Amino acid sequence: MSVIKVAILGFGTVGEGVYRTIQSHAQEFTAVLGKKVEVVAILVKNIQKERNIREDVLLTTNFQEILRLPQLDVVIEAIVDKEPTFTYLKQAIGKGCHIITANKEMFAHHGKELLDLAKENGVSVGYEATVAGGIPVIQTLRQLLNINRVSQIQGILNGTSNFILSEMREKKQSFAESLRQAQAKGYAEADPTNDIEGFDAFYKAMILSRIAFGEEPDWQTVERQGITAITSELIEAAEKLKLRFKHVASISKEDEQIIASVKPILVGDENPFYHVEGAENAVNVHSDIVGRITLQGPGAGMYPTASAMIEDLVYVCQSKLNSRQNIKKTADWRGQIRKQKDYWLLQGFVEKTKHPEITWLDEVTDSIFIIEAGKEDLKGLLGRQPEICYFQILGDENLPILNKPTATVI
Amino acid sequence: MSVIKVAILGFGTVGEGVYRTIQSHAQEFTAVLGKKVEVVAILVKNIQKERNIREDVLLTTNFQEILRLPQLDVVIEAIVDKEPTFTYLKQAIGKGCHIITANKEMFAHHGKELLDLAKENGVSVGYEATVAGGIPVIQTLRQLLNINRVSQIQGILNGTSNFILSEMREKKQSFAESLRQAQAKGYAEADPTNDIEGFDAFYKAMILSRIAFGEEPDWQTVERQGITAITSELIEAAEKLKLRFKHVASISKEDEQIIASVKPILVGDENPFYHVEGAENAVNVHSDIVGRITLQGPGAGMYPTASAMIEDLVYVCQSKLNSRQNIKKTADWRGQIRKQKDYWLLQGFVEKTKHPEITWLDEVTDSIFIIEAGKEDLKGLLGRQPEICYFQILGDENLPILNKPTATVI
Repeated sequence: MSVIKVAILGFGTVGEGVYRTIQSHAQEFTAVLGKKVEVVAILVKNIQKERNIREDVLLTTNFQEILRLPQLDVVIEAIVDKEPTFTYLKQAIGKGCHIITANKEMFAHHGKELLDLAKENGVSVGYEATVAGGIPVIQTLRQLLNINRVSQIQGILNGTSNFILSEMREKKQSFAESLRQAQAKGYAEADPTNDIEGFDAFYKAMILSRIAFGEEPDWQTVERQGITAITSELIEAAEKLKLRFKHVASISKEDEQIIASVKPILVGDENPFYHVEGAENAVNVHSDIVGRITLQGPGAGMYPTASAMIEDLVYVCQSKLNSRQNIKKTADWRGQIRKQKDYWLLQGFVEKTKHPEITWLDEVTDSIFIIEAGKEDLKGLLGRQPEICYFQILGDENLPILNKPTATVI
Repeated sequence: MSVIKVAILGFGTVGEGVYRTIQSHAQEFTAVLGKKVEVVAILVKNIQKERNIREDVLLTTNFQEILRLPQLDVVIEAIVDKEPTFTYLKQAIGKGCHIITANKEMFAHHGKELLDLAKENGVSVGYEATVAGGIPVIQTLRQLLNINRVSQIQGILNGTSNFILSEMREKKQSFAESLRQAQAKGYAEADPTNDIEGFDAFYKAMILSRIAFGEEPDWQTVERQGITAITSELIEAAEKLKLRFKHVASISKEDEQIIASVKPILVGDENPFYHVEGAENAVNVHSDIVGRITLQGPGAGMYPTASAMIEDLVYVCQSKLNSRQNIKKTADWRGQIRKQKDYWLLQGFVEKTKHPEITWLDEVTDSIFIIEAGKEDLKGLLGRQPEICYFQILGDENLPILNKPTATVI
């Protein structure tokens, strides 16, 4: 039986998960691919460390040694940082290897180059693990929604932020305390900036944008806001309204323009995101034929992420290059998002009479309000009072909080 | 450019949805398949009816006329009943056509025969639309979870039942009144037996079982219970406990045996099914590497169902026969569901002292109880008091109702 030879770059949580799964699921690989899958090399930082790896696997700190192997079919990358990863993967593609990556930052920056290079070299790129861990959102968009025209994708894409927001709400804890717990559980790094300031979710959103729309918005135009402004007071006010804060990445196409944002928003009980708690991820895809479908599952962790890479391994071994990106790019269609009214939760002291363009719907406390306003009108208000804090409430005029008896126009 | 010629059998809601979508998404088909897709014939019941169909489409009441067309590549079936559908599709396969069906009853009974026949004839069968409407659950199981070992699938697979349960809870309405509303909205047939007695969900569960495990349980061993026993009183008692009734199909493999049931169960707030309301469907897949992922979306309707069939059209035109079924069947592995304690809501008058094998956890009203008991012990109790009504509560010892201050062991 012929053999597919695989190298794994990195042996941290994810790299180890991939290695263990390839060992434990040998039978499934053979059944699906008709070939044996064999890990022949692993790139590590420290060669001395005890690791429980089969003896015939080449352990090395030198990627060039891996590239010189006589047969190498797939390179699975599970390290962080843009470099030297990007360089390694270019070299692997140049040598005719399929590549699989979990590195969102690198892939958001260099994905297009890698995909183009792979196409030139007749190999495939698997990157399911870059977005939403084990949830097969990339393959769903790419393989299962071929004819549907996607108009909008919304996602809870960062498990760390979602965990912190859940903890704050459930345990009535401060942001700082919840962050410490996320760090203690291994969800957050010592420097949590990437997660809590929305960079991680931003990279993932850009990757999704390229799959769904064939292109990305200008990165500078994307509104990116972390969760550090969410206080216990705000969470409590939201609870009273039966709303919850979720850190949501949103990408949509309107009139040929891609609009993206990553920010905390409020959702009500009827929204599938309301119940996505802890380190879970969820992605909502709106498309024209099927309507809205939601995928939910573990967003990170050893085996969920390994699962995405392992399924990619089958995909790259089975499939030809997918030219979906180009198709979407050239197709001439317009996004079909229904224009809806915008609702906001405002925090700050505002003289209502000075803003006739805004409809004041509810007063939660003397400094927290629910309003209805166009984005431009809201910007006008904020131009004059930049200290005001505001969050969009996801939904339309059927939102329960707008229809409850106490929500009278004030 | 070459052309893929398609016939549609039936021009009801789903058939019309498929026709309209093929017309409106011509560009996408060409981009993805490199070929034009053309509807060349439609099988109808009444040829006189005004339908707004292109004039060059053959409209006929005679399927043999369709089979005699000089080129026919795909037959899309959107009619009901097992016959004459099964016969038509066998004939279509015999003529070398790929087939796509939305007919769960027919497919649950004859799917294996159709798949075998298709394999012999080198054509493909698309049946995504038979389960959970627009949610791509079958393709997810088949294409995206190749290496994962599925241990359990649970699903809200019947939109009508879910709609009725939602209405009963939200509007505090009787079963009869909610059923009338489902009928008025077109969710339920004049004879709703298939939906409310769980036959529809049963057929879908059998189809999922074959995909996930390569086989079905003996149909006679499957516990099938509809929603007609759910009274307003029970729903109210559940509400008090922060639980909701959901009609859930469950299929799992334990020690080489497939265990399936279709019945109302209770779920708490932490379960993704808790929030699946109205005519929505949801499917939960447990597998060994990724863990639990949930897919949620529209379970029925003109365009969601058409979406599934349209995406199948791409699938059958692109792919070779998938031999996944056989793989799963021969793989030697054991289901890995963790054995958990079973919790139940009981309705009826029970003398507690007579049942020392049962742990009585909470008394909701004087005839509604929460208990912990093995299934065998529960059967023992029911053998003596068959009038008692019981429902499983989904979850483990972390269930919030078991940890709330009022839930003391009584």
